[in-house]
Amino acid sequence: MSSTFGHKLKISVFGQSHSPAIGVTIDGLPAGRLLDLEQIQRFMARRAPGKAPYSTARKEADLPEILSGLTADGYTCGAPLCALIRNTDARSKDYSQLQDLPRPSHADFTAFVKYGRYHDIRGGGHFSGRLTAPLCFAGAAAMQFLNAQGIFVGAHIAAVGGIQDSPFDSVRLTQEQLLTPGSKEFPVVDEAAGQAMKERIEEARRNQDSLGGVVECGAAGVPAGLGEPMFDGLENRLAAALFGIPAVRGVEFGAGFAAAAMQGSQHNDPFAIGEEGKIVSLTNNHGGILGGISSGMPILLRCAFKPTPSLSRPQQTVSLSQMENRSLTVEGRHDPCVVPRAVPCVEAVVALVLLDFIVQSV
Amino acid sequence: MSSTFGHKLKISVFGQSHSPAIGVTIDGLPAGRLLDLEQIQRFMARRAPGKAPYSTARKEADLPEILSGLTADGYTCGAPLCALIRNTDARSKDYSQLQDLPRPSHADFTAFVKYGRYHDIRGGGHFSGRLTAPLCFAGAAAMQFLNAQGIFVGAHIAAVGGIQDSPFDSVRLTQEQLLTPGSKEFPVVDEAAGQAMKERIEEARRNQDSLGGVVECGAAGVPAGLGEPMFDGLENRLAAALFGIPAVRGVEFGAGFAAAAMQGSQHNDPFAIGEEGKIVSLTNNHGGILGGISSGMPILLRCAFKPTPSLSRPQQTVSLSQMENRSLTVEGRHDPCVVPRAVPCVEAVVALVLLDFIVQSV
Amino acid sequence: MSSTFGHKLKISVFGQSHSPAIGVTIDGLPAGRLLDLEQIQRFMARRAPGKAPYSTARKEADLPEILSGLTADGYTCGAPLCALIRNTDARSKDYSQLQDLPRPSHADFTAFVKYGRYHDIRGGGHFSGRLTAPLCFAGAAAMQFLNAQGIFVGAHIAAVGGIQDSPFDSVRLTQEQLLTPGSKEFPVVDEAAGQAMKERIEEARRNQDSLGGVVECGAAGVPAGLGEPMFDGLENRLAAALFGIPAVRGVEFGAGFAAAAMQGSQHNDPFAIGEEGKIVSLTNNHGGILGGISSGMPILLRCAFKPTPSLSRPQQTVSLSQMENRSLTVEGRHDPCVVPRAVPCVEAVVALVLLDFIVQSV
Amino acid sequence: MSSTFGHKLKISVFGQSHSPAIGVTIDGLPAGRLLDLEQIQRFMARRAPGKAPYSTARKEADLPEILSGLTADGYTCGAPLCALIRNTDARSKDYSQLQDLPRPSHADFTAFVKYGRYHDIRGGGHFSGRLTAPLCFAGAAAMQFLNAQGIFVGAHIAAVGGIQDSPFDSVRLTQEQLLTPGSKEFPVVDEAAGQAMKERIEEARRNQDSLGGVVECGAAGVPAGLGEPMFDGLENRLAAALFGIPAVRGVEFGAGFAAAAMQGSQHNDPFAIGEEGKIVSLTNNHGGILGGISSGMPILLRCAFKPTPSLSRPQQTVSLSQMENRSLTVEGRHDPCVVPRAVPCVEAVVALVLLDFIVQSV
Repeated sequence: MSSTFGHKLKISVFGQSHSPAIGVTIDGLPAGRLLDLEQIQRFMARRAPGKAPYSTARKEADLPEILSGLTADGYTCGAPLCALIRNTDARSKDYSQLQDLPRPSHADFTAFVKYGRYHDIRGGGHFSGRLTAPLCFAGAAAMQFLNAQGIFVGAHIAAVGGIQDSPFDSVRLTQEQLLTPGSKEFPVVDEAAGQAMKERIEEARRNQDSLGGVVECGAAGVPAGLGEPMFDGLENRLAAALFGIPAVRGVEFGAGFAAAAMQGSQHNDPFAIGEEGKIVSLTNNHGGILGGISSGMPILLRCAFKPTPSLSRPQQTVSLSQMENRSLTVEGRHDPCVVPRAVPCVEAVVALVLLDFIVQSV
Repeated sequence: MSSTFGHKLKISVFGQSHSPAIGVTIDGLPAGRLLDLEQIQRFMARRAPGKAPYSTARKEADLPEILSGLTADGYTCGAPLCALIRNTDARSKDYSQLQDLPRPSHADFTAFVKYGRYHDIRGGGHFSGRLTAPLCFAGAAAMQFLNAQGIFVGAHIAAVGGIQDSPFDSVRLTQEQLLTPGSKEFPVVDEAAGQAMKERIEEARRNQDSLGGVVECGAAGVPAGLGEPMFDGLENRLAAALFGIPAVRGVEFGAGFAAAAMQGSQHNDPFAIGEEGKIVSLTNNHGGILGGISSGMPILLRCAFKPTPSLSRPQQTVSLSQMENRSLTVEGRHDPCVVPRAVPCVEAVVALVLLDFIVQSV
Repeated sequence: MSSTFGHKLKISVFGQSHSPAIGVTIDGLPAGRLLDLEQIQRFMARRAPGKAPYSTARKEADLPEILSGLTADGYTCGAPLCALIRNTDARSKDYSQLQDLPRPSHADFTAFVKYGRYHDIRGGGHFSGRLTAPLCFAGAAAMQFLNAQGIFVGAHIAAVGGIQDSPFDSVRLTQEQLLTPGSKEFPVVDEAAGQAMKERIEEARRNQDSLGGVVECGAAGVPAGLGEPMFDGLENRLAAALFGIPAVRGVEFGAGFAAAAMQGSQHNDPFAIGEEGKIVSLTNNHGGILGGISSGMPILLRCAFKPTPSLSRPQQTVSLSQMENRSLTVEGRHDPCVVPRAVPCVEAVVALVLLDFIVQSV
Repeated sequence: MSSTFGHKLKISVFGQSHSPAIGVTIDGLPAGRLLDLEQIQRFMARRAPGKAPYSTARKEADLPEILSGLTADGYTCGAPLCALIRNTDARSKDYSQLQDLPRPSHADFTAFVKYGRYHDIRGGGHFSGRLTAPLCFAGAAAMQFLNAQGIFVGAHIAAVGGIQDSPFDSVRLTQEQLLTPGSKEFPVVDEAAGQAMKERIEEARRNQDSLGGVVECGAAGVPAGLGEPMFDGLENRLAAALFGIPAVRGVEFGAGFAAAAMQGSQHNDPFAIGEEGKIVSLTNNHGGILGGISSGMPILLRCAFKPTPSLSRPQQTVSLSQMENRSLTVEGRHDPCVVPRAVPCVEAVVALVLLDFIVQSV
C-alpha cells in the first residue's frame, strides 16, 4: 500500500523505471470537467528530463495515454482516471553492478533488505524519480479542478547550492506571481539568482558532484476552514504526501524552522479587517494554516531536497554478496541537481492534497 | 476523523481542555505484555505542567485511569486499551473574551470558521496542548513494547531562543545517550546550554513574550527494512503524526534542510562492513531512512516549534461579532516556551509510529 | 484496529465485558447539535438486559457518561465525542473454566489462538455482546443528526424460531411504521407473531436451548445519490459494519437471497413518476440501493443471527491445556435469544453508516 | 475511492465498459514469486464472455498486459503490479437511448443522480460486470500466493432458478473438491443439477427473461487466527468486498440465514481433538469463522445474485429529460444469468481478502 495516498481523492501510482510502463489511477475526481490534455502535457514537460545541461540525458516523450475515467467527449465521468506512460528509453545494462554494490545514500540497500534479489534495480525500480511523471500527470489534472474554484498553486527553486531566490510574497500572493516561475525554463523568481544557480549546478557536474536545494510552494485562493485538528490537518497530509517525492528530507510551513528562533511577539500574525471586509492577517508566518486548518491566507511551505546520490566519482560501498568493502563508480545518466525538475512535482502533490480536502468537504 | 492515526496500531485521542476528561484509545497492541504503569506515569510527568518557572501554572495530577485493554492481572489482552485523565484544574472563566477575539496565530480563528460559536473555546478546546497528555500515555505504553525488542527512543531540546544544544551522535547513538536528557529536569545533552536556555525563557516570560525551539529525536535499534516506498515510508507517517503535536511547523530527517546546501560528495554516507559484520554507514546524513525504509542506522529527526502564541501583552486582532479591529491581552496561564514539555510528546509520537510499523510487519 | 469503523465519521469502541468500563469515541460529528441525552438513554434501554424472561439476568444501569465532544451547554463542538459506561454487575467467577474449555461456536477458541492465555475471557471480553451498548449510544446520537434531515431508521424482529413477523412496507415505509416496533416492549410489527415468538423463546429457555432469528431494518428519507460504485457503496459499508454485531451470520438487501430464485421480469422494479413529481420505483426489490448508490426509495436489509452459543446443557468441547475431549456445561447468565436486544443494535449500525455517508457528501 | 479495497494488499480497479482499457493495480504483493501467467489466463477464461448459449455474445480476448510489478525475469518485485486489458469489441451505439431511459433495477438511474449526464453510460460504464475481469486477474495472482501456503479457494453454482447443486462438504473440504467445479465448462458439483440449470437458463433466454442464483465459495487450509474482532474480522472484510461484485444482494457465512431458524443445540459445532491431534469442530455451521477470526476449519460462504436487469422485453421506466413514464426495450448483448461467470469472481474476491489478511499478519 506504499504507493497510494489520499482520502476521498485517491492517488495510486504504479511502475518501475524500466517496466513496460508507469502510470497513475486517480479515484474520486468529480464528474463533469472537460480535461485540458494540452495543459497537462505542458505541465508534465516541466518535469521531463533532457531539457538542459543540468538534467539527465535520458529522453522520454512522456506522452500519457488516458485509459479510463473520461466520457467519449473527454469529460471526467466520475470513474477512476487511469493514465499510463510507456517507458521507451530505458537502458537497463547501466544498472547491473548495482545489484551487488548499493549506492551510498540511495534506496538500493534498503530495497535489498526488503525485497532481496527481487528488487527491480533497473533505473532504481519503483524508487526512481521517474515515478514523479505520473504524479505530475495527476497533479496537473487536479490543478484544473482547483483553478475552476479560483485556487492556484505554484512553486519555485528557493535555494540551490547555497544561492537563494527571492521568496514569494507571503501576504499578497497573486496567481501571476505563483505561475510565473513555472513558465520559465528555469523556475525562479529572480533571474539573476537563477543564473547563478545554473552555474553552480554546471560546476557540480564538472566536478562529478551533485547539489541539493529547497523548493518553496504557495497556494492562493484556498478557502478558510479546510483541514481537521490534530492528525488530519493540512500539514499532516501535505507533509505525508510531500515526503513521497524522492529526495525530500524536510518540510516546513510558514516561517518553519525559522519560527523556532523567533519570539512570539515577532512570529504572531496580527488579525485585521482587510480591504474587502474579510478577516486577514497582516503578516503570514503561519503560512495560511492554524491548528491544521486553512486560515484563508496564502498557504506557504518549503521542501528540502538532498543532493543526488548517484555520482560518477568513486565512492565507498559494500558488496552484498561478498560482505566486504568496495569502491563504486556509478555509470549512467543522473541529474547533478534534481531541484529544477522537482518544482512541478511539489506543485502536483500540493494540488492533489488540496483537492482531496476540497472534494471531501463539498 | 481528525484525532486518529496509525494503521495496524490505531491511536484515537479525545477530549477538550475543559471537558470532563481527555483520553486515548490504542487499538492493536499485541496481547501478553505486563504494562508498567509507574513507568508510564514517570514518562507523563515529564510533560506535566507546573513543574518549573518556564511552564504554565496550571496543575493537573494527570493520573490516567485504564478503562479497558488489560487482563485482571494487568497484561495487555489484545482488546483496545483506553485510558482517561480527568480535567480537574480547569478555570473556564479565563477564556470568555476569546470567543469573540481570536488570538493571533492560534487556532481560535480557524476553529471559529469551522465550528462557528460551537467551538469549545475553553482552554483551546480540542486544539489544546493538553491533548498531548493522552498522547504521552499512549507513547509510553508503546515504548515498553519497543524496549522489549531492543528499540529505544529519546529526544532533547536541540535549540531554544537561538541557543543550540549538542546534537545526538548520529552514528553511535546509544540507549544511554537517548534516555539521559529525559531523565533530567530540563531535557538537554549539554547542561550549560540548558542553563542558558532556561535564562532565555525566563527573560521572555519577564518580557511578556514567548520562544520557539527545536526538538531532536533519535531511535536506536530499529531493524532495517521497516517502511514502504513512496507514500507509506517512515518519513511520511512520522511527519504526518508529528504535525499533530500543536505548534510544530517543520519536520526534517537526517541532515534535513542542511542537506539542501550540501554537495552529494559531502552528504552521501559511505557503506562499510561494521564491527559486528553488519552493513553500516560511516556517516548518517540519511538519518537512518533511505527510500522511506529504515537502514538499520539510528533514526534521527528534528521538529521546529513556533513560539507560544498566547501573550499577556496587547496584540492586534478583530472582533468576530463586530468585524472591527481590536486589541487583545490574553489572560490565563500559558507556557512562555512549550519546547521542554514537547520533548516527551515527540518521543511518544515517534514510538507510536515505529510500533505501528513493527506490529504491521511481524 | 479491529474496533473502529467509518470514514469521515469514525467510531471506535473499547472495553471488555468485565473491564472497568466500556465506551465509544465518535470522531467527525458535525458541530452545533444539542444532543438529547434522554432520547439516547431511551434508545439504549431497548438494548439493556434484564427486562424480560427472554433476556439475561445481568443488570446494568448502562448510564453513559459523556467525557468530551460537547460544549458547556451540551452542543456538539466538532471534537470527538467519547462516552463511557461503567461495568458494575460483573460476576467474573462464572467464567473461570472457560479459560481451558472453549464454548462450542463461540469466540473463546479463536481468541485463544490469537491472544493465548492473555485473552480476557471474563464475560467474553471484547467479544461480548455487551460491547453493543456503546454502539447503541453512538447510533442513538447519529440518529438525532439523521432525524434533523428527515431520515428515520427502524427495525423489528422479522423471524425467530421459524415464526415470521409481517415485513415492513418496502415501497411506502413511513416514519411511524419504522419507529413503532421499537416503541414496544417486544419489537415486532404484528403483535400475534410477537406473542408466538416469546413463547418459543421461553420454550427454548426451559429446554436449556437457544434460538436465532432475523432482524429487518429500514431507512426512510435517505436522499438518492449516497454511496460509491464497486467497493465503497452502501451495501459494502453497511455489511462490513453489521457483521461487527456479534452473532450476525448473513446480511441481505432488498429481496436478498430470495432474489436469487426470481426471474428478472419479477425482480425488476419499474420506474415511474411518483405523486410528488419525483422518480420512484413501483416495487422495491432493490431495497433502495442500485449499483451501491441510494435510489431515494426506502433502504431495506435483513441480518441473520445465529442462536446463542452458550447453553446450560452439556456440550462437547476440548481442554486446551490437556488437548483431550471434554464435556462443558456453561454456567452464568445468557440470553436464550439475542434477537430482541439486537434490534436496536442493527438500527444503531445502520444509522452510523448512513450518517458517515452523509457527512462525507455534505 | 470507490474502486479500491484492501488494507496491506490494496486493489485498485479502473476502467469503463467502453473506455480504451480496464485494469487493476495490486499494491502489496510480496516480492519473489514467479507469476504463472498462463494460470492467470486460464482463470480469467472462466469469467470471459461468449463461451456458451447462457452468456453474452460480446467477445473479448481479455489478454492482460502487465505494465509493472515484475522483475525482468517475471518475479514479483514488491512494487505495485498493474495489468490492463484493452476493450476491443465495444459497440457503443447500443446504449444511446439509456442515457435518457434508465433500465429498471440497474445503476443507470443512480449513476445519473450522482454524475448527471457525465456518467459514461456506454456498456454500463464503471458499473459494468466487465470490471470483474481485472478483479479476476488480481484474484488469480493472489491465488498463487495462497496456494504456495497450502490455501485453496474454490466455488460453484449453488443454485440457479430454484435448482440446487450439492453443497461442498463443510467439514472435509479438500483441494480437489474445491477446484473441480472450476475445471468444468459449467461450474457445479453435481452434473445433473448443472444440466437442469442450463436448461432453465436457456428457457429464460427464450422468454426474454433472466435468472438469479447463488454461488457457494469455500477455502481450505486457512490457518486459525486470521481476522480481528468486531469490525475488522473475516466476515466484515469479505462481505464488504463481495458486495463489490455487481448483482450481489446477500452474503452469508456458514449456516447463514438458515442458522436463524435453528436451535443452539443444533447449530453449535462441538470441538474435538482431530485425527492429526489438532483441535477441530465436528460440524461446521460456523463456516470456519468465530468472532471474526478463522478457526482453522474450512471457510464457507454464499452470495446471492439477482437476475440480470437488462431484458429485451418491454419494461416500464421514465424519461429523465421529459420526466414522464416510458416503455423501454433493452437492445444489446446481455447474459440471461450472470451466475456461471460470477463463480470465478467470487473466488477472486475471497482470495484477495484472504491474502490481504495473510500479508498483514506475516
